[in-house]
Amino acid sequence: MTAAVDRYIQQNESRFLDELFTFLRIPSVSTLPEHKKDVARAAEFVADALRQAGIEHVEVIQTAKHPLISGDWLHAPGKPTVLCYGHYDVQPPDPLDLWDTPPFEPNIRNGNVYARGSADDKGQMYMHIKAIEALRETHGGRLPLNIKFLIEGEEEVGGESISAYVRRHKEKLKADVALVSDTELFADGVPTLCIGLRGLVYLEVEAAGPARDLHSGMYGGAAPNAVYGLIQLLARAKDEKGRIRIPGIYDDLSTPDPVEVESWKRLPFTEKEFLQHIGSSALTGEPDQSVLARVWARPTFEVHGIAGGFTGAGAKTVIPAKAVAKVSLRLVPEQKPEKVVAAVKEWISQNTPEGIRTAVRVLSASPATLVNPHHRAIEAAAKAFSDVLAKETVFVRGGGSIPIVGEFASELGIPTVLMGFGLPDDGLHSPNEKYRIANYYLGIRTIAKFLEDYAAL
Amino acid sequence: MTAAVDRYIQQNESRFLDELFTFLRIPSVSTLPEHKKDVARAAEFVADALRQAGIEHVEVIQTAKHPLISGDWLHAPGKPTVLCYGHYDVQPPDPLDLWDTPPFEPNIRNGNVYARGSADDKGQMYMHIKAIEALRETHGGRLPLNIKFLIEGEEEVGGESISAYVRRHKEKLKADVALVSDTELFADGVPTLCIGLRGLVYLEVEAAGPARDLHSGMYGGAAPNAVYGLIQLLARAKDEKGRIRIPGIYDDLSTPDPVEVESWKRLPFTEKEFLQHIGSSALTGEPDQSVLARVWARPTFEVHGIAGGFTGAGAKTVIPAKAVAKVSLRLVPEQKPEKVVAAVKEWISQNTPEGIRTAVRVLSASPATLVNPHHRAIEAAAKAFSDVLAKETVFVRGGGSIPIVGEFASELGIPTVLMGFGLPDDGLHSPNEKYRIANYYLGIRTIAKFLEDYAAL
Repeated sequence: MTAAVDRYIQQNESRFLDELFTFLRIPSVSTLPEHKKDVARAAEFVADALRQAGIEHVEVIQTAKHPLISGDWLHAPGKPTVLCYGHYDVQPPDPLDLWDTPPFEPNIRNGNVYARGSADDKGQMYMHIKAIEALRETHGGRLPLNIKFLIEGEEEVGGESISAYVRRHKEKLKADVALVSDTELFADGVPTLCIGLRGLVYLEVEAAGPARDLHSGMYGGAAPNAVYGLIQLLARAKDEKGRIRIPGIYDDLSTPDPVEVESWKRLPFTEKEFLQHIGSSALTGEPDQSVLARVWARPTFEVHGIAGGFTGAGAKTVIPAKAVAKVSLRLVPEQKPEKVVAAVKEWISQNTPEGIRTAVRVLSASPATLVNPHHRAIEAAAKAFSDVLAKETVFVRGGGSIPIVGEFASELGIPTVLMGFGLPDDGLHSPNEKYRIANYYLGIRTIAKFLEDYAAL
Repeated sequence: MTAAVDRYIQQNESRFLDELFTFLRIPSVSTLPEHKKDVARAAEFVADALRQAGIEHVEVIQTAKHPLISGDWLHAPGKPTVLCYGHYDVQPPDPLDLWDTPPFEPNIRNGNVYARGSADDKGQMYMHIKAIEALRETHGGRLPLNIKFLIEGEEEVGGESISAYVRRHKEKLKADVALVSDTELFADGVPTLCIGLRGLVYLEVEAAGPARDLHSGMYGGAAPNAVYGLIQLLARAKDEKGRIRIPGIYDDLSTPDPVEVESWKRLPFTEKEFLQHIGSSALTGEPDQSVLARVWARPTFEVHGIAGGFTGAGAKTVIPAKAVAKVSLRLVPEQKPEKVVAAVKEWISQNTPEGIRTAVRVLSASPATLVNPHHRAIEAAAKAFSDVLAKETVFVRGGGSIPIVGEFASELGIPTVLMGFGLPDDGLHSPNEKYRIANYYLGIRTIAKFLEDYAAL
């Protein structure tokens, strides 16, 4: 990185933090109607910040729910184009009484800024804007490559508007790579690129037994029990060790790239610490897979919740007529969601116990995404990260999904650099969400360096 | 039965019904504090009715909750003593809007009286009092045998007071047999004696996995899931066919008496109708046992309810930290509740999946009760029933438990004649509870005849 950019960022640190504080004070809670105006205010804040950073054609685009913001700077012919994505909406702050300081009054303690949205994602997406500003100020009012921005205000409520927008504006959004800062470092000081996100098939499975709840004294022993039928069905989905028994689930799996597996070995990870963090007596899952492979690169079958029958205080001797469970399968690259849904439905119909009827509702189905670690943008990002932190970059995967990354891949045909600077204990979606101030500056520097390096390739 | 008794009952039918209506108009809902005075009023009504029937030493005994009523007539030396039990409290009537006529305003439709408590148990226990009155009026002011009464007002709320009273007054309550009319005919016109009630062990099983709910994207595949652990555990309790796999559960079982099994064959029972009544696609349970054996004479393992994780609308990808299930085992004669509890606890500790911790709370544990069908009181009751209805009496069992019957057996050492005149569709505990008026008169006649016959043995 040119020393100039570095110097500019250092000289402007306190202003960058002030600006972020102003942004964090806007309670842009996208899920609550009473904050609709605040969300709109946050959109205007972002648009203004983009303009001030030198981004052109900045638009606040109205949608069915909350505005999108777009803009670009496209005066570097022959150079690559990067599409920066982020979101300015935040999760609701409740339970309020668990916050040590008010969620929308940023407070500094121990080198962290505490506020809703500080890490997810205001603090991280604002780094993009400040990196652009720094590059422009130190490159004679120009940027070393082409930049597009697309920022949304519905990430915490499903992101429907951006999804529709991307499908309808492929040409406008055309780029070589997307840049998203909405993930975290594996541990403080470890340069981390997330190159894979699992997909998700989410199902509701309902079981019906007798036509109505029955008295177990009168019918117990002969009448089918919907709760028990569902229990029996779901228990068959995995063997004692946690291997999924549904035929076809382990077909089509791609094996992680050797570069990726090699980088996992450099992670400050021990099974013992992982177990302590989880707080259970043992781990589960496929015994022939490493723990990181299990959570990043293998499909899962999980029951998120189950309800049925009597669960109040005391004893009631009912044979329940109905029961329902929320079930998901995490998908890994090459698995086709529709094939997985079909396999699960077929398996359920084959394995439903006698006397029970089951119905399956598909609530969502999205594929995994995986970025080739040998892509030149990823290599540039990895190198920039390593240079700034003086440590080799590790490639990790996220077990969760960021749907927009899948849409950039499927609709725009571009990979995404997932370069995030959060920490595992930032408390996203929880009270006392925080973001480390040093990582805010680190992010601005690393992003600026990545863009410079990528432009120079 | 002497023609005199029969004639007396016939001549007084309309008065007997009027008196029952007065009784039914008292809303003696034992579970609702606002009805405390009504419950007390119902107790006084019962005491007065006993006195008018010629019962002596009638007492309204105050307890921690609702009064007991006791009384006796003991002037038949050398003759057996019968202890009559019943309850004057009723279930709450709600949901009120589902009643066609007000629950505490008895209404006659199609030969039934509709009112809360008409069948359970005011209408049935009042038959005892009217049978005594009829005997006394037709036996020159005397009874053919000795009678004791013990009537409670807490049957619908656990019956703690009577349970304590029985333990403390064994001498006072000494009798040859108890008489309870709180059951039903197998079908209209079928003389039915219930000679067995299953016992019940009721447990709450709690499973704990991770220390807190986890994000399944980040931990799914390696972190234990409390809901799934509980599902896996409970699914192991029974095989595909419904046979319980917990070691020891099928030890100590007594086989039903041949007289009993023979009488089951006379029941108007078909598996097809039973299945239709239940409304499911198939029955479950031990394939080598008849359906009636399964619901009456075999132990069961039932999951009454399960709760854990996310079960709201939509999708949430949580790995639940906790889950809980309500589980019961119905016990049959010779099974010891404490042995069953120990066997289940041991089995749970052996079968809890790795990474899961389980805790078991015992909410109740009571043994089955079984009356020897060759006991002379049972034989007398069976014959009286057959004579009145001109059909052979069948011996059935109740799948549920009536705790006081167990206490009469264990504390007083006496069997109970369970001679009830309800019908399977009477709607106990439901809106529009009813009692067939013809069965009210039938009950008075049958009970009077049983007492006469038993005295004459």
